[in-house]
Amino acid sequence: MANIAYIPGDGIGEEVTSQGIKVLEYLDGAYNLGLKFEKFDLGAERYLKTGDILPIAVLNKLETFDSIYLGAVGDPRVEPGVLEKGILLKLRFYFDQYVNLRPIKLYKEEFSPLKGKGLEDIDFTVVRENTEGIYAGIGGFLKKDTPDEVATQEMISTRKGVDRVIKYAFEYAQKFGREPKLTVCDKSNVLTYAHNLWQRSFKEMGKNYPEVEQNHFLVDAMTMKMVRNPEIFDVVVTCNIFGDIITDLGAELQGGMGMAVSGNINPDSISMFEPVHGSAPDIAGQNIANPLAAVLAAGMMLRELGYGNLTPKVEAAVKSALENNMVTADQGGDLNTDEVGDYLVKTLKSNE
Amino acid sequence: MANIAYIPGDGIGEEVTSQGIKVLEYLDGAYNLGLKFEKFDLGAERYLKTGDILPIAVLNKLETFDSIYLGAVGDPRVEPGVLEKGILLKLRFYFDQYVNLRPIKLYKEEFSPLKGKGLEDIDFTVVRENTEGIYAGIGGFLKKDTPDEVATQEMISTRKGVDRVIKYAFEYAQKFGREPKLTVCDKSNVLTYAHNLWQRSFKEMGKNYPEVEQNHFLVDAMTMKMVRNPEIFDVVVTCNIFGDIITDLGAELQGGMGMAVSGNINPDSISMFEPVHGSAPDIAGQNIANPLAAVLAAGMMLRELGYGNLTPKVEAAVKSALENNMVTADQGGDLNTDEVGDYLVKTLKSNE
Ligand SMILES: CC(C)[C@H](C(=O)O)[C@@H](O)C(=O)O
Ligand SMILES: CC(C)[C@H](C(=O)O)[C@@H](O)C(=O)O
Repeated sequence: MANIAYIPGDGIGEEVTSQGIKVLEYLDGAYNLGLKFEKFDLGAERYLKTGDILPIAVLNKLETFDSIYLGAVGDPRVEPGVLEKGILLKLRFYFDQYVNLRPIKLYKEEFSPLKGKGLEDIDFTVVRENTEGIYAGIGGFLKKDTPDEVATQEMISTRKGVDRVIKYAFEYAQKFGREPKLTVCDKSNVLTYAHNLWQRSFKEMGKNYPEVEQNHFLVDAMTMKMVRNPEIFDVVVTCNIFGDIITDLGAELQGGMGMAVSGNINPDSISMFEPVHGSAPDIAGQNIANPLAAVLAAGMMLRELGYGNLTPKVEAAVKSALENNMVTADQGGDLNTDEVGDYLVKTLKSNE
Repeated sequence: MANIAYIPGDGIGEEVTSQGIKVLEYLDGAYNLGLKFEKFDLGAERYLKTGDILPIAVLNKLETFDSIYLGAVGDPRVEPGVLEKGILLKLRFYFDQYVNLRPIKLYKEEFSPLKGKGLEDIDFTVVRENTEGIYAGIGGFLKKDTPDEVATQEMISTRKGVDRVIKYAFEYAQKFGREPKLTVCDKSNVLTYAHNLWQRSFKEMGKNYPEVEQNHFLVDAMTMKMVRNPEIFDVVVTCNIFGDIITDLGAELQGGMGMAVSGNINPDSISMFEPVHGSAPDIAGQNIANPLAAVLAAGMMLRELGYGNLTPKVEAAVKSALENNMVTADQGGDLNTDEVGDYLVKTLKSNE
């Protein structure tokens, strides 16, 4: 039993998440999950028509659901940042989704821009802190628009906020890690307050997980290692802004936005799952957008809803689509968006 | 005429910069430059013996020089960060070296971790702001070491500080850019104060440089583009912390720390040049460290001292060393550190 709030959003959001819904509806029928969907029309259309971004009445309604499935937000007619901040960041903060879970997994060797790295080499998960740090939105201007202007932006780390995400990362490494190994990525040699707290939290929490190997990279060295030796990573935990950066770098290592998935998780409340790509207004409405990331996001959501046994099935279907070239043009295939979804359902059926 | 303060520093610092000095001394003789060197023993030894990191008397002395040539600082016997902050960051701030210039240039195709990218594809320059942002060192703790602890770290951007580095970047693009094109890299969709100032400064300054193509990447998208399409970049300007991250990523694209060079520049005062690599204590004293980055740093310094015609000669000698495999073991050769330096001098001589 699960009630899923479904926010297709802007641009290609509706097309790609329709395939995710198609897959979920199939699994619902086949395994009797009791999934229910309700659609919410948040996004550019609504904003342009009514001025509403995310009214409190909608937030209150969303609170009654088990999970949120989101397409993409962003529209050329709206100033950049307005919808991303007003919907995406707002939901993350409102539901205190303190974990941003970003698997970096190469599904097909030729997708990777890196020489000599195979599927086993690019396979790790980033646990990004998702509710604080420099995303707090706190700061200001002094003497704005004068030559003496000063602008400040506050990075705030709380012990509670850092402890809980590091704990989640340790537990995740224990459950799903290969080795298991947890790497903390920070800039503690320069951010001697905010990331000193990260260091202390990591070391203290680490004592409870002696079976998890523990190491540390400064963020600059981290990006180097990610392109030179991605195979050394298993699970990585990091702050909000560094997580933003290294997960996108990671997405490129796995073949770009076509495959990148993001789970915004509050283990005790309502989580939200989305493909990482944007709304791609230039190709919207043509039934050519690649739905694989949206489908993988739906697969990740199943795990959070307690159907973790189905997540690998979804991943296997995606893998099969890639191996058999049953994909959209951006990945070298000649199917349209809908047909990829149909193929995935067919594959799930025959793998049952 | 130029007086150069020479700080070999720790570990391999002395060995690699000796080769830089060797090259500089040769050019000094051949072209009658009038270079003078004075050595300063800053680093771990001095700190451990005397407790001094960078005494004010030394700073005052350094002020009388034209340029600083630095090896590397860092030692396993000293808590990480102490020497880096006490020497490297201190010098950057004290001499207001507001530009960190980091060329990302691939010298040998096989060095790059990227598939199908050649020498023409990986060739751009990052201009990193070097004196403010989240490196300000400002912040604090509330209720430290309690479960309610809050740690803050302030990112501070000033209009003056941002304007001057963006101006430098535009001028640099004009003088040395290929297209010329200047990309600004920020996170203005989230850092709505500090990076809003960056956006306004970039747009306004840009009006003075209509012949320079201008574009913008959010830092997360930037790292993706750097590994997928590095060829689209010419000159990039960014804040201190993002500069730290993307220049190290860039260093890896050009073959890692063996080739990465950093100029800390105050165009009106004393600049400092250094290889980016660390002190590598594990291989120190064995005459096996790769001196090419240190030599390229010396070459970059020559340009700042007004001998810009010699900089390409140094780069050509390094290129020749790589083409003829006259390099150290880390780059597949079998020369020692000294011998690489000798080869470079010989090459410069025969190219005269
Ligand atoms: C759209 C933007 C605000 C967002 C972020 O910076 O977190 C995005 O880049 C992401 O990673 O989900
Ligand atoms: C050593 C460290 C303080 C320094 C920095 O973060 O600036 C280094 O990474 C660099 O890029 O020169």
